[in-house]
Amino acid sequence: MNSSESNARSEHRPILGAQIMDDPAATEEKIDLWFRTLADYDMPLARVFVPRGEEGLRRMDWFFRAAEKHGVGITATLGGQPSPESERWILEVVERYQGSPALDSWILINEPGWAPASNPLAVERFRRWLRDKYGTVEALNRAWGKDYAGFDDAGVESSRPGAFSAAIPFLDWYTFWRSHLTWHLHWIAERIRKVDAVHPTHVNPHALITNLAANSQDLPAWRSFLSSLGASAHPSWHFGLLGRDQYALGISYICDLIHGASEPKPFWITELQGGNNTNSGTRPLCPMPEDIAQWVWTGLGSGADRVVFWLLNNRSFAVESGEWSLLDLQNQPGERLETAGRIARIVNENAAFFQESTPVKSPITIFLSLETMSLQERFEQSSPVTSTERGAAVRLEGRGRNAHVLAALAFYETLQEMGIPVRIKHIHDFEWDSRTEEPQLAILPNIAALSADQAKDIETFVLNGNTALITGLTGAWDPENRFWSLTSRFPLEDLVGATLREIRTLDTDCQVSLLEPEIALPSHLWVGEIANHSAHVIGRQSGWITAVRKHAGAGEVFWIPSLVDVGAWLDDHRPLGQFLASVTSPFVANLAFRFAGPHSGCLLRVLRSGEDYLTVIVNGAAQAKRLQLRHPDGVMPTVIWREGSTVSPTGDVTLAPRGTVVALWRDVKRSED
Amino acid sequence: MNSSESNARSEHRPILGAQIMDDPAATEEKIDLWFRTLADYDMPLARVFVPRGEEGLRRMDWFFRAAEKHGVGITATLGGQPSPESERWILEVVERYQGSPALDSWILINEPGWAPASNPLAVERFRRWLRDKYGTVEALNRAWGKDYAGFDDAGVESSRPGAFSAAIPFLDWYTFWRSHLTWHLHWIAERIRKVDAVHPTHVNPHALITNLAANSQDLPAWRSFLSSLGASAHPSWHFGLLGRDQYALGISYICDLIHGASEPKPFWITELQGGNNTNSGTRPLCPMPEDIAQWVWTGLGSGADRVVFWLLNNRSFAVESGEWSLLDLQNQPGERLETAGRIARIVNENAAFFQESTPVKSPITIFLSLETMSLQERFEQSSPVTSTERGAAVRLEGRGRNAHVLAALAFYETLQEMGIPVRIKHIHDFEWDSRTEEPQLAILPNIAALSADQAKDIETFVLNGNTALITGLTGAWDPENRFWSLTSRFPLEDLVGATLREIRTLDTDCQVSLLEPEIALPSHLWVGEIANHSAHVIGRQSGWITAVRKHAGAGEVFWIPSLVDVGAWLDDHRPLGQFLASVTSPFVANLAFRFAGPHSGCLLRVLRSGEDYLTVIVNGAAQAKRLQLRHPDGVMPTVIWREGSTVSPTGDVTLAPRGTVVALWRDVKRSED
Amino acid sequence: MNSSESNARSEHRPILGAQIMDDPAATEEKIDLWFRTLADYDMPLARVFVPRGEEGLRRMDWFFRAAEKHGVGITATLGGQPSPESERWILEVVERYQGSPALDSWILINEPGWAPASNPLAVERFRRWLRDKYGTVEALNRAWGKDYAGFDDAGVESSRPGAFSAAIPFLDWYTFWRSHLTWHLHWIAERIRKVDAVHPTHVNPHALITNLAANSQDLPAWRSFLSSLGASAHPSWHFGLLGRDQYALGISYICDLIHGASEPKPFWITELQGGNNTNSGTRPLCPMPEDIAQWVWTGLGSGADRVVFWLLNNRSFAVESGEWSLLDLQNQPGERLETAGRIARIVNENAAFFQESTPVKSPITIFLSLETMSLQERFEQSSPVTSTERGAAVRLEGRGRNAHVLAALAFYETLQEMGIPVRIKHIHDFEWDSRTEEPQLAILPNIAALSADQAKDIETFVLNGNTALITGLTGAWDPENRFWSLTSRFPLEDLVGATLREIRTLDTDCQVSLLEPEIALPSHLWVGEIANHSAHVIGRQSGWITAVRKHAGAGEVFWIPSLVDVGAWLDDHRPLGQFLASVTSPFVANLAFRFAGPHSGCLLRVLRSGEDYLTVIVNGAAQAKRLQLRHPDGVMPTVIWREGSTVSPTGDVTLAPRGTVVALWRDVKRSED
Repeated sequence: MNSSESNARSEHRPILGAQIMDDPAATEEKIDLWFRTLADYDMPLARVFVPRGEEGLRRMDWFFRAAEKHGVGITATLGGQPSPESERWILEVVERYQGSPALDSWILINEPGWAPASNPLAVERFRRWLRDKYGTVEALNRAWGKDYAGFDDAGVESSRPGAFSAAIPFLDWYTFWRSHLTWHLHWIAERIRKVDAVHPTHVNPHALITNLAANSQDLPAWRSFLSSLGASAHPSWHFGLLGRDQYALGISYICDLIHGASEPKPFWITELQGGNNTNSGTRPLCPMPEDIAQWVWTGLGSGADRVVFWLLNNRSFAVESGEWSLLDLQNQPGERLETAGRIARIVNENAAFFQESTPVKSPITIFLSLETMSLQERFEQSSPVTSTERGAAVRLEGRGRNAHVLAALAFYETLQEMGIPVRIKHIHDFEWDSRTEEPQLAILPNIAALSADQAKDIETFVLNGNTALITGLTGAWDPENRFWSLTSRFPLEDLVGATLREIRTLDTDCQVSLLEPEIALPSHLWVGEIANHSAHVIGRQSGWITAVRKHAGAGEVFWIPSLVDVGAWLDDHRPLGQFLASVTSPFVANLAFRFAGPHSGCLLRVLRSGEDYLTVIVNGAAQAKRLQLRHPDGVMPTVIWREGSTVSPTGDVTLAPRGTVVALWRDVKRSED
Repeated sequence: MNSSESNARSEHRPILGAQIMDDPAATEEKIDLWFRTLADYDMPLARVFVPRGEEGLRRMDWFFRAAEKHGVGITATLGGQPSPESERWILEVVERYQGSPALDSWILINEPGWAPASNPLAVERFRRWLRDKYGTVEALNRAWGKDYAGFDDAGVESSRPGAFSAAIPFLDWYTFWRSHLTWHLHWIAERIRKVDAVHPTHVNPHALITNLAANSQDLPAWRSFLSSLGASAHPSWHFGLLGRDQYALGISYICDLIHGASEPKPFWITELQGGNNTNSGTRPLCPMPEDIAQWVWTGLGSGADRVVFWLLNNRSFAVESGEWSLLDLQNQPGERLETAGRIARIVNENAAFFQESTPVKSPITIFLSLETMSLQERFEQSSPVTSTERGAAVRLEGRGRNAHVLAALAFYETLQEMGIPVRIKHIHDFEWDSRTEEPQLAILPNIAALSADQAKDIETFVLNGNTALITGLTGAWDPENRFWSLTSRFPLEDLVGATLREIRTLDTDCQVSLLEPEIALPSHLWVGEIANHSAHVIGRQSGWITAVRKHAGAGEVFWIPSLVDVGAWLDDHRPLGQFLASVTSPFVANLAFRFAGPHSGCLLRVLRSGEDYLTVIVNGAAQAKRLQLRHPDGVMPTVIWREGSTVSPTGDVTLAPRGTVVALWRDVKRSED
Repeated sequence: MNSSESNARSEHRPILGAQIMDDPAATEEKIDLWFRTLADYDMPLARVFVPRGEEGLRRMDWFFRAAEKHGVGITATLGGQPSPESERWILEVVERYQGSPALDSWILINEPGWAPASNPLAVERFRRWLRDKYGTVEALNRAWGKDYAGFDDAGVESSRPGAFSAAIPFLDWYTFWRSHLTWHLHWIAERIRKVDAVHPTHVNPHALITNLAANSQDLPAWRSFLSSLGASAHPSWHFGLLGRDQYALGISYICDLIHGASEPKPFWITELQGGNNTNSGTRPLCPMPEDIAQWVWTGLGSGADRVVFWLLNNRSFAVESGEWSLLDLQNQPGERLETAGRIARIVNENAAFFQESTPVKSPITIFLSLETMSLQERFEQSSPVTSTERGAAVRLEGRGRNAHVLAALAFYETLQEMGIPVRIKHIHDFEWDSRTEEPQLAILPNIAALSADQAKDIETFVLNGNTALITGLTGAWDPENRFWSLTSRFPLEDLVGATLREIRTLDTDCQVSLLEPEIALPSHLWVGEIANHSAHVIGRQSGWITAVRKHAGAGEVFWIPSLVDVGAWLDDHRPLGQFLASVTSPFVANLAFRFAGPHSGCLLRVLRSGEDYLTVIVNGAAQAKRLQLRHPDGVMPTVIWREGSTVSPTGDVTLAPRGTVVALWRDVKRSED
């Protein structure tokens, strides 16, 4: 193995690439051509699936031979359930290819993320997990409301939801399954490491813009055995909650989510829709060159190390045949591959900037809670969110499986449209007690299930001089579905100086009337009424207090216990934007770049390298846009991607429909060099 | 046991109360506080669930101790499947608490009413039931179209619906299950009576505004072993067929339904939604004080003996945690409890009136048929009621499981909005041959399945001088799905002097054109064409006769064999109101109180005690209303509940949005005393 | 057996008749009356179901006795799964009745057509079928991606769809099942022929306006053992894809479909909705006399040999009781039977014309492909066609189970509305290489799965001087779901001089912009971009070529690889009509009759007998219509069915709502005789 070559390649960043799909009909020459195509288009990374069976491996040898010949790296996807047979196969594959100079990295398994399933291995490990958690069967029986004779009685049927039964069996099962999937991935990583201590490890979870607990995904828990984290990001598979104008937003959200779960390690977009889907996916979509550009630039502007298309070449058989590829239906390069290749060349031409670039770090963080997603999954399973009233459909998403995710998305979209960057962090993966120089803003969007420790973390964070914005039913329940104020007290009560009195439904105009600033925020389903002890009232209506604000230690907290987040998402997020403009103003002053105001469908991504910046401004909508970009004094833009859009030295930006403009900003004096 | 105390309490009526929910976290002090709260708010009745297990019973002792201390009665809910184990437990519980002066009554089991389920006990008893019905297996085989060797071959799979197979196995299974549930409840009542011959027995069926046969509920059959009948009545669980403005209507309907099934024994509202539901139920709802007032006053005005809220205190765990309670989310009294308590005090202040009050008895009765509901359940299971035409949804409720219930609801609502009281009776629970002083009006709304005996009953009723209004496909089938006119003849043919010729679908404007009075009644799905022999034609269109009227004996019958009832419900019920104004005019002359005309969303309930009356007028809608109340001469109102609504001595009524006004009417001379 | 009588009857054509349904309550007298009724109304054909069991056959004897008495023929429906028991019963029945002069024909089984089901017999025969197809288990494993030890491992579970797995197991299972159903029918026919070599055999497949592969129906394959082919044609069961105004169109489509699959043998309408359905079917419908007239005349005008109503008499029990019959709900003749009888008499009065009449043969054929329907069935099962975007429903039919059928229907309806007759042929049942005098036009509507041989057939057809119009994704896949251009090349590439580059989705205005003629054709879901080699471009947009035309040999081909067919169906088919007016103009010049232009909701059927013609013009819509009928010079119409509609000697036609006008056209001189 020529490890220096391998290292040389992997030291370049970012890299574009694509999955090469084997096909029974492909000759070695055809495979060679595919690798040459990647090389020709400056996309020197091929992802492949390693097949089982000797015949498959012989074909895989052709892949490695072609990759070596054309200087293309291979990121090889393994897989399998933990078993001696899988282990033998993994060891064989790793042995076989670890010495290839083309080998770039190992992907443990494709798209980890499954609903809890009661296969024998999972059930056996669940019983052990219960024994560890509860110690005695008596303790288990108390918690679950059962009268088991032993842990082996604990079946999964106990975790089926019913509106009246305790949620703990269900929640235990979901919590266990997150650890079980983590263990499974770790098991594969360990098999690789038995043989190959050098090459990076990676996985690409999918379906990330939805309830993560429904797929047992605890992304930060995978950090310890991964070299990088990735994602599959296909608008026509994974963006069911989004509309056609929100696809760049979706890419951006996924990047920030996996960035947060991976940092300080890098992240990739491991699968990005490369071509049309017709019969598969949730609806047909054929990306236009401007889609390819906005998705890739959004990924790069978010700091992705690699952007790998799914696929380079079409499959020839099964439902996905003739779908998803950069190549056209004649297996020829076309506009999508040309676009990707042009971006790759521009990146190479600006390697000096990109090599050490990092995304600007935002002082604002949106938090996600897997406990909340588990709880909401159960809510949906016991009380469907579809309803009608006298024949007309009624939307109830705010009490369903995505009630927290939609709230997070509402904040994310609203801030992105203002050009304000945010971090996305799991609530259990954040240094709550670290004191940063700049004060930070934590957004806790409808985090219905909150542990006492998590509440304490938030309190510490605020007392240390930071700000928290808390919405929805955040902190109403503990992670085992006990209503806090009914078992002890609201765990944020001291912090917010108030507690929840009622969850009120309104006949019409479901909204929260803020007084400071004076804004009517659309809510969804209900409005929370506050019993105030010591907070400053900033929202009041019908005699009820509906929003408060309180200084606490060196920091401050805003509390609006209503679904103003989901309401913004489903109805109109401009009022939430006005409110956020006010709340975020102390935090955005130091940002080098942001929009002068909100711009529907637009977003801004900023990389920094030394004193230089790169801005990616995207218009997700089908209508042209104009906006004003605030930027530091004394820097001048060089536009490196335009396609009908522009950015001027004074920050005037025009964006073509679905347009993307990318500029490097350098010190005026240096840029005159 | 101080039975006089117990009796003393139960002699007061009506009483308000609430379910107290035990909670693992509750201390004895907390439990004591809950009982004290009920006492403080003049609601001296707590409903409780008796738990299994010694630990649970020790906690239950705390409940009884607190109840005794605060003078609060306990209505204790038992339960369980018939089994020796259940019997031991019931006997133990009844022994333990029958002596407590706090014990008010026993609730046999919570919310009886289940879809037929093939558990071993049910299947075994079904086979015995078949043997009793058919005698020989040959007779069973003929009826079912099978070739069983013996009754033990008769499985439930035979009762699965298919459009082409005979309906009898399905209908037998549903008929059996009604008797099976009755037997089950009786079994529990007998266990109680083995020990306790004194305390009243009660149950609270649920889901009453839908197909009762789907839940195996034959309410009148339970009368023999109950002291009173009740109901769970939660707008956000059980009112799926109703809109937001119809919740008072729903309470009123349930009261009249269980009143009819219980009389001459009393009835309760055993569960009434006390607070918000968020994640459970069909859609979130938090009752406002005006909702509490309209629901409670509607119940009291309907003659309920007790109105018991679900719940006093929130559950702390499971999906319903933080839901349903009169207390707020801090377990503190709030506006809902205050409202309920104020009503309780007003009732106490007017105990002299209430104690002996009874609802005015209406000469108009709407009939329900369980055989029809069984048949329509089967129709829905074999032919779904959802359809589309070139992408657009088509409503087909009129041929589905609620085709009879919606028809009944349409008449009920239309008459309520005119302030005209009605009785609701099961067709098998009415003295058809009794001769009352005043003539009566029977409404038979789309009673598709009618037995020969039932038809004979109706005929007798009319010949005796009463009137019948018959709509929809009433009498088209016998209770075993045989089409009457094809096996013998329409069983009402002699009575109505006509028979059904065709069931016609119309391209547009599906309506029945009445000539006398001249009204176009919206119909649904189809219009029935009549072959007339001897009746007077009152509806004719496109050359078809669609409505007739006939004098028969001392009485009269109206027959409109079209879904003018379901059509009114789905479309516009004002034309039906005009028709009913005409049909009912001979029957309403003697009513002391009614509205001068129809008022959308409003209803009237009237109690009488001696020469005094109490009127409850409710506005279910979110808009204020004005109306004119017809009242007897020489009485003057004293308004005892107002909240922004009014009633004047001349009967001018103004109603706030969702407002309720309650007045006592006394003889002018007496009221001047 | 008096075979001359039987033959005498069956030589008359066409004949009207009806199913007589036995009923437990029917006496022999009642049965006799039903047969007399048919005779009285000139409908001398009764269809019956032959029951199992001696008692049933004794009742059946009554049927035959009554039929003989009244000179009515009986077409007797057998049935059963292949088994010794079934065989015994069939032989017994055929023996018993073959000698009756009333016996007209045998219907093998009612409504053959079932989704593939894994009963033991099917699974066993499937394994043998696989052995025949693949020879070795290794070949099977390669194709299916399995590692079976033998053919007995091949289970049906392997054919369950998944987006990623190979489609071949699924497609094999569906292909097998078509042969299995054919074998099953053949088995019954052979049992009959063991005893009775004389009487005709027949079957009536149902659900024909949908995916035929979903019901395993390969209609042309049944030709060899049938004397005629029929169909069940019930608007309220089988016309779910059609709207209320398209029922005559549906009848016409079914006639042309079974005519194509049966020719040169005759076809029947074996079941035609005779009366109201209320609780069964997809939505209630009661045919008006004008419906009966338009359906029967459409069938006769299409050349049907017999039109048999379902039913004469109502069933008295089960869900369909009181439904479907010509008789009314009192079992009396009414307007529907009168209408049918009047038509029958008119047919008799014009027996000289009808006896030898044949439908005019069209030079235009629409092709159906069962391989395509199988593939699309799988597409739908792996990717549901229901989707939403931010709460709004999105229609995706164009990628679902009916994507080919809807395309065919779009062409069919558009041409019918122009009064242009078409043939409907299965692609595997056409003499592609026969050279006809007149050039022909083949329409290949979205035939996604095309074999190499089929492509070759089309090429031969064109080279021989004919024209092909090819739309949608025709030829994209082979019948085993391999994408042609990715495994070898587009099989029509030489013919059309072009191939498919991309399948493009558009943001808005999904349409194909034709240049010659200049028409914007609505498309659905996507637009296909063409890589052109040598064709003449006739459509171009956004820089893409979207339609081409090419002379090939003596013929010509049009290729529009977009769903302009499904788009026309779902959106607006007038633009497609303009395009077809242009494409079809060389082919329609010799047609004796057609409309002067398109007329929404109308259709034309033409029979010819010698030099005489019969035209049936139908208005399916509820609005009156006027149109101009082109007709040969020198002929004069005699209107034989009018009912408010007219046709003048100059071809001016007025049509009442849902009106039908039937005219005989004879040479002026002869008609003056």
